[in-house]
Amino acid sequence: MATLFKDVYISDGSRTIAERVHLLVSKGRIASITDARENPPSADKIISGRGKMAVIPGFVNAHTHAAMVLLRGLGEDAPLMEWLKNKIWPVEDKLTPEYIYWGTLSAMLEMLATGTTCFADMYFEMEGVADAVLSAGMKAALCRGITAGEPGKIERSLQNNIELAEKYHGREGLITVQLGPHAPYTVPMEAMKSITEAAKSHGLGVHFHFLETKGERDNLGMTPSEYLEASGLDSVPYANLAHSVWLDPDTELHENISLIHCPCSNLKLGSGIMPLPSWLDRDVPVALGTDGASSNNRLDMWEEMRTAAILHKGASMNPVCVPAVDALRMATYEGARAFGFSQKGMIREGWAADLVLVNLDSPHYIGVNGENLAAYLVYAGSSGDIAGTMVNGRWLYRNGEYPTLDREEIMQKSHEARKAITE
Amino acid sequence: MATLFKDVYISDGSRTIAERVHLLVSKGRIASITDARENPPSADKIISGRGKMAVIPGFVNAHTHAAMVLLRGLGEDAPLMEWLKNKIWPVEDKLTPEYIYWGTLSAMLEMLATGTTCFADMYFEMEGVADAVLSAGMKAALCRGITAGEPGKIERSLQNNIELAEKYHGREGLITVQLGPHAPYTVPMEAMKSITEAAKSHGLGVHFHFLETKGERDNLGMTPSEYLEASGLDSVPYANLAHSVWLDPDTELHENISLIHCPCSNLKLGSGIMPLPSWLDRDVPVALGTDGASSNNRLDMWEEMRTAAILHKGASMNPVCVPAVDALRMATYEGARAFGFSQKGMIREGWAADLVLVNLDSPHYIGVNGENLAAYLVYAGSSGDIAGTMVNGRWLYRNGEYPTLDREEIMQKSHEARKAITE
Repeated sequence: MATLFKDVYISDGSRTIAERVHLLVSKGRIASITDARENPPSADKIISGRGKMAVIPGFVNAHTHAAMVLLRGLGEDAPLMEWLKNKIWPVEDKLTPEYIYWGTLSAMLEMLATGTTCFADMYFEMEGVADAVLSAGMKAALCRGITAGEPGKIERSLQNNIELAEKYHGREGLITVQLGPHAPYTVPMEAMKSITEAAKSHGLGVHFHFLETKGERDNLGMTPSEYLEASGLDSVPYANLAHSVWLDPDTELHENISLIHCPCSNLKLGSGIMPLPSWLDRDVPVALGTDGASSNNRLDMWEEMRTAAILHKGASMNPVCVPAVDALRMATYEGARAFGFSQKGMIREGWAADLVLVNLDSPHYIGVNGENLAAYLVYAGSSGDIAGTMVNGRWLYRNGEYPTLDREEIMQKSHEARKAITE
Repeated sequence: MATLFKDVYISDGSRTIAERVHLLVSKGRIASITDARENPPSADKIISGRGKMAVIPGFVNAHTHAAMVLLRGLGEDAPLMEWLKNKIWPVEDKLTPEYIYWGTLSAMLEMLATGTTCFADMYFEMEGVADAVLSAGMKAALCRGITAGEPGKIERSLQNNIELAEKYHGREGLITVQLGPHAPYTVPMEAMKSITEAAKSHGLGVHFHFLETKGERDNLGMTPSEYLEASGLDSVPYANLAHSVWLDPDTELHENISLIHCPCSNLKLGSGIMPLPSWLDRDVPVALGTDGASSNNRLDMWEEMRTAAILHKGASMNPVCVPAVDALRMATYEGARAFGFSQKGMIREGWAADLVLVNLDSPHYIGVNGENLAAYLVYAGSSGDIAGTMVNGRWLYRNGEYPTLDREEIMQKSHEARKAITE
């Protein structure tokens, strides 16, 4: 089935001027992009934009723990370690594969309604997460969070992560799998080396929490460069360093490394403010993520995009840093690229039709045009403007409805799970 | 007509535990608040919450320039003074009373949909603004922005501001009027003194931009305390100091003074980060504002509330500062109090029924209860959750409709105004 977006603006993180086009989607891909002044191609289904709608790439949430929606609101206003130890980890112990399955689906309801087409998830009991992803038809980059514990725990978790990759990596073009060592302070160096060796031998990427807090940096015991080299992270196929708030901004990074900026989580947990402008100045790839819903507490990538765009202007007192188009690119293309999804995250012929339809027919878009659309989207827009979210040309969210998901059942099961783990 | 909110949670900036109640609104006021387990009072109109809706006070946007929605998106990513001089002021010269009238109405569409019941506006041609406010049925604190210019300009502007007060102060219980000297760098000290003298003799408050940028602080030529005393601001009936980013946090402030924090505008323009936790520690009253839509670019107070709550945790690396209930109080009660509206901004019997109805029946509210509601609202919620906004017991926004405003006409007129001033 072919869907035509007739006379819509298109904007993505590669273009400073938005074009007004006819956008044809067919067989899951962007089939053609033609000038809106020309006759449109034919299609089974036509969405008429009349210049009052925009199509942008779906957001890629490059760091989350989706099922933590079940832990949202537990232990607000506490320091990171105290919060993890007293509020989060004890409740996490009660999570079952079934709860994680339903919690992930509930997170997907939120993410789809706010324009996310793909998310990078680090958690446990990941087979259920993978099944939830496939049933929804979203895209996801999955890894099993690996932490030290009783003897043999790291080895078993790594084996479990590798089995996840064997079963799901590349499945239906929707899933990539990474290895997921949790953080320097939860995985000893020797184990890190064995994990990065496994990543190399299996051709997998690595998703890792790195230097989220100042305490972590103080206790690293070496420079970040030395850590990345010693651990082998700088020689795996690709590595994504979530947070990196305290990664020294003069660190030389190998080309296999992307940073994942989680501005709202870093603010809310009091972790600090990442030196984003320095990385952008040096063309280091930076993607954006929400982090888990228990530390943010939204799974709304539009919010991360806007926060990234305005936060650093204020923190560095430089109103020209992190321009809107860079924020849009970080929220879309950079996340897709970082986790091994090709031809995703830009509006280009032949690329995946992972798209968000945005309604511009509202008071806060008065004055919008091709030249300023990216700025309007990033600074004035919000996820409330979203009329639909599609993955591979299929609507997964459209005007409040979820064609592939049973919203009521998911909410009911999630309510039950929340009750079970907190009582 | 009496409206009953049957079995809803109520939350405001004074209560850490949300109650589940029947809330009766009659004659524009909160008539009764009774336990949801008891039989509800009778009413003409019943909204059944079933414990899945919350009622909170309407937001008070304590600093904006509403009609600047017509200038949104002009000259993004530029330093404050360059942006004002090259992009904003030349276009402002083309604004007519009619454009300002329609622009203000357009801003009200945005504000009502995002839960604002009252806004503090500093602009010019304010009679049209007042008429727009009255026709919508919103509340507003209005002042004429007074700046130096050709000889006699300040005197004429002050006279115009006083006439505004004589005509509109207290009108229909919807409007208060302040005097509006613009800023230390646009109003000479002698003129400041005459304005504060006029405020005292007319019993009016003063709304003022103070120390928005570091340059302003560097050029003040005295301490802020000295300025407040010399200008007479510390002895007017009440004074609201917008921005105050660079107000030294050890400054002793008289009780007539409130600060107005505009976190998103201060970030986006690169002005810096106000030391909010210091003020809250000392119980200095701080309200929140969006600033104009050309510097934010949203007029969404929920966004300001959330940004205020998370920004300072990150900037000060203290995750326990600015707790959710304080952010909620700043966004509601503190703004009402600062501008002379009595019995507004809390959910209390006899207080104005300026209320926002919030839908909690969404995935991101799973786990909400009486103890954590404020945190869910501030950290996980957004203006997209708003089902209705009422002022004095009358719906001004309800499920996407505006009972007192013609949305299509306002948007059409605003489009025309934007076109006229930018071509």
